[in-house]
Amino acid sequence: MYKTTAKETLAIQTKQVMPNDTNALDTLFGGSLMAWMDEIASISAYRHCGRVVVTASINNVSFDLPILAGDYVTLEAKVSRSFNSSMEVFIDVFVEDSLGKREKCNEATFIFVAIDQKRNLIRVPELIPETAEEKSRHKSALRRKQLSLVLAGRLNPKDATELTSIFYKD
Amino acid sequence: MYKTTAKETLAIQTKQVMPNDTNALDTLFGGSLMAWMDEIASISAYRHCGRVVVTASINNVSFDLPILAGDYVTLEAKVSRSFNSSMEVFIDVFVEDSLGKREKCNEATFIFVAIDQKRNLIRVPELIPETAEEKSRHKSALRRKQLSLVLAGRLNPKDATELTSIFYKD
Amino acid sequence: MYKTTAKETLAIQTKQVMPNDTNALDTLFGGSLMAWMDEIASISAYRHCGRVVVTASINNVSFDLPILAGDYVTLEAKVSRSFNSSMEVFIDVFVEDSLGKREKCNEATFIFVAIDQKRNLIRVPELIPETAEEKSRHKSALRRKQLSLVLAGRLNPKDATELTSIFYKD
Amino acid sequence: MYKTTAKETLAIQTKQVMPNDTNALDTLFGGSLMAWMDEIASISAYRHCGRVVVTASINNVSFDLPILAGDYVTLEAKVSRSFNSSMEVFIDVFVEDSLGKREKCNEATFIFVAIDQKRNLIRVPELIPETAEEKSRHKSALRRKQLSLVLAGRLNPKDATELTSIFYKD
Amino acid sequence: MYKTTAKETLAIQTKQVMPNDTNALDTLFGGSLMAWMDEIASISAYRHCGRVVVTASINNVSFDLPILAGDYVTLEAKVSRSFNSSMEVFIDVFVEDSLGKREKCNEATFIFVAIDQKRNLIRVPELIPETAEEKSRHKSALRRKQLSLVLAGRLNPKDATELTSIFYKD
Amino acid sequence: MYKTTAKETLAIQTKQVMPNDTNALDTLFGGSLMAWMDEIASISAYRHCGRVVVTASINNVSFDLPILAGDYVTLEAKVSRSFNSSMEVFIDVFVEDSLGKREKCNEATFIFVAIDQKRNLIRVPELIPETAEEKSRHKSALRRKQLSLVLAGRLNPKDATELTSIFYKD
Repeated sequence: MYKTTAKETLAIQTKQVMPNDTNALDTLFGGSLMAWMDEIASISAYRHCGRVVVTASINNVSFDLPILAGDYVTLEAKVSRSFNSSMEVFIDVFVEDSLGKREKCNEATFIFVAIDQKRNLIRVPELIPETAEEKSRHKSALRRKQLSLVLAGRLNPKDATELTSIFYKD
Repeated sequence: MYKTTAKETLAIQTKQVMPNDTNALDTLFGGSLMAWMDEIASISAYRHCGRVVVTASINNVSFDLPILAGDYVTLEAKVSRSFNSSMEVFIDVFVEDSLGKREKCNEATFIFVAIDQKRNLIRVPELIPETAEEKSRHKSALRRKQLSLVLAGRLNPKDATELTSIFYKD
Repeated sequence: MYKTTAKETLAIQTKQVMPNDTNALDTLFGGSLMAWMDEIASISAYRHCGRVVVTASINNVSFDLPILAGDYVTLEAKVSRSFNSSMEVFIDVFVEDSLGKREKCNEATFIFVAIDQKRNLIRVPELIPETAEEKSRHKSALRRKQLSLVLAGRLNPKDATELTSIFYKD
Repeated sequence: MYKTTAKETLAIQTKQVMPNDTNALDTLFGGSLMAWMDEIASISAYRHCGRVVVTASINNVSFDLPILAGDYVTLEAKVSRSFNSSMEVFIDVFVEDSLGKREKCNEATFIFVAIDQKRNLIRVPELIPETAEEKSRHKSALRRKQLSLVLAGRLNPKDATELTSIFYKD
Repeated sequence: MYKTTAKETLAIQTKQVMPNDTNALDTLFGGSLMAWMDEIASISAYRHCGRVVVTASINNVSFDLPILAGDYVTLEAKVSRSFNSSMEVFIDVFVEDSLGKREKCNEATFIFVAIDQKRNLIRVPELIPETAEEKSRHKSALRRKQLSLVLAGRLNPKDATELTSIFYKD
Repeated sequence: MYKTTAKETLAIQTKQVMPNDTNALDTLFGGSLMAWMDEIASISAYRHCGRVVVTASINNVSFDLPILAGDYVTLEAKVSRSFNSSMEVFIDVFVEDSLGKREKCNEATFIFVAIDQKRNLIRVPELIPETAEEKSRHKSALRRKQLSLVLAGRLNPKDATELTSIFYKD
């Protein structure tokens, strides 16, 4: 099966925050941002496997900086690792000011699976990380997967090799 | 400061899945569901504290059953625990069939914080769980909080009392 | 044919008024509220009969209190009476303040019919009112139906038994 | 105070029914149509008085013919009568086929009031009906008003002069 | 083949500018206006030929006067000329003030083609201009067509008879 | 005043065509595409000048290939030339297939102006084209500007130096 580099899966969306996306403090609703993230992340996952993809789960997302009405927001999504039939997509969100300087305001990881017309899972290609950041995220994706398996009771913590450095350091 | 029971924070929203909320397989987009969850969860958090609330982070969300175009979906949100200025809201999502039988199709937890006009954090009331489920979620909310602090490097795993049962069982 | 209690048909939707739903005075458009009412009322009618339902007519709706941008609005819909193939749904609309106190701001009745795939009318179950309010609305639903039949010229006013107390009192 | 002819208040909106406006049978939702009616009717009321107008109540609306996805729908709104600070707007809805022939599929009456910045009621101009249809609707508007006052218990049925022909004919 | 007068193709849409249609200066986005123009123009083209129509191209559109949030905007579209399978639709946009006086704020021309189920082009009826304005626009439509053919390199400028008055006057 | 390279103004938006964006043939509405173009082009213009920008006019846009429901569409906008207070933005639209191959399906040019809080025009920076394509579009932008000035009667065709090659070749 063919492989894809992380770079080939990059999907970008720049948009402006509209009044209806904001709350009483004129800052972006978390829910609107989540919907945007899901759209751009699904496009990245599609670019990786060329099949219909659906969201399987969403990991920890934190909203660090408030995003204001009228702000220009850029979402960048890239597949960080693929497993058998699932892909983790890493999304970075930036706000840019009038001098073109952009500041990262939050990040998230979404898990997608590829399915056929009968909703059966499909095997997806391997993902090749190239840059240092891509390699680091590729590695931590396994840790996130093991953690979610442990929390779901489907993996013995002792076998979660990537969690050792966090939970079993001396 | 006054206290609120979990029951008082219950917020409900039943809606029908519209064409624009669905993908090529006629199932609900994850992003649309996330936006709905954020809206109803913020109402629950508002009911708990009576102040402006904003989404601080989102924990693991899993999409277990596909939701189809035309389905009637009910979201129920209830504060599961409050900390100093943050509240964990637990959201259950159900689909119902034509005989009124409803089936749970996924769940999620969102963290909200209460803020004043200058975006400073505000202390929120204590949450009183009453039913067995409310008490169980109240307890597991602490585990989820400790886990996210450990993952963020802000809590020593040894001090994460609620994680012992998962990671340090013999 | 099975029967349904009014309570089983209760459908609830809490939402926040967004900028796009408001006019130049920052109050909710009547049309937005009507659309929300129609959605939640159709879900209530669906719960009563488990079939596809379509709006047949709308009775007098009055907008008593203005609803402001940012307000949390709760719509509660319940079938008040069923006739052969039609159902009257009663909708109450409430706004709540920051202390959780809610105030009723308007009400309306919608008539739905149940139809099959060829758009033929389908017989719907009988509706069982239980509480005092449900019984009162069940009774007044007949008056509203007779009134609309009289106004449409399809019922002789003398035969409109429920209108006597209004129009023919001495 | 100046007067306006009914013709001067005519407001028109032709639009195409989009997927999101339709239900499982591919016919237009009642709620979407109500929202469209409210928008065009408020424009008609605005044209009559030149002030901010808000929806006060909605009278009986019936949905006679189903409107399909993709249909071209024309809404025509015209003030039918003005009272002290309120205006009744009559809305006709048409669907047109590919030969340009249009068929009326439903009608409704909305009541608007004109208000100032403090939401106080404002007196509105007199409405001059000219055509036979405008005069007929101008007359029946009074009957509808009296009927709603009687039903609200604010007018003695014996004094409802316009209702006599319906309820007290021999 | 039957012919249609320009008047028969008139399509009108009056609407109010909503918050989400406006930018940081509270004026209407060009993109929102373009989308409205496309909708009303396609209805006009449909009225001319009674077939499915799709946008083929858009000519110069200029935004002369800013349109503000809350403004009432009227779009009037009329077919200005038909060619073999294409139609030019001329759109005038007006804003009206509280005295009913309306001011033209911009205009545009869109080209539509009529197609069958397999997306093959269909011949459309001839358009009959009647008023002076209709005749003037009918004439200038040919100039616009020749200009676009010349710019696309598909017509020798020497054969563009309608451009002579602009480019080759002495 | 500082200068900006064309590359620095590149703004990208990838999105999926939703049901509500499509017509009876399941192809993208021209109006939806125009609205998307306007949004991404305004972001490009903003990146060039860092000021509030509004759409001034739109040049010829042609819709060459139909775009289908579910397609992934990428819009790329880059400033092609700046004049005193206006900027021409060139937009390329691509559709991509499941193998990642993308095909250009249309292009357009929009003119934006930068304005201050009182809607006065502001001088914008010079644009530096670098690649062959950027230089070619920078050159043709002047031709498009001269052509629109000629058509508006504000420039003598004889002085339209860039039009000579089109209209006055021997």
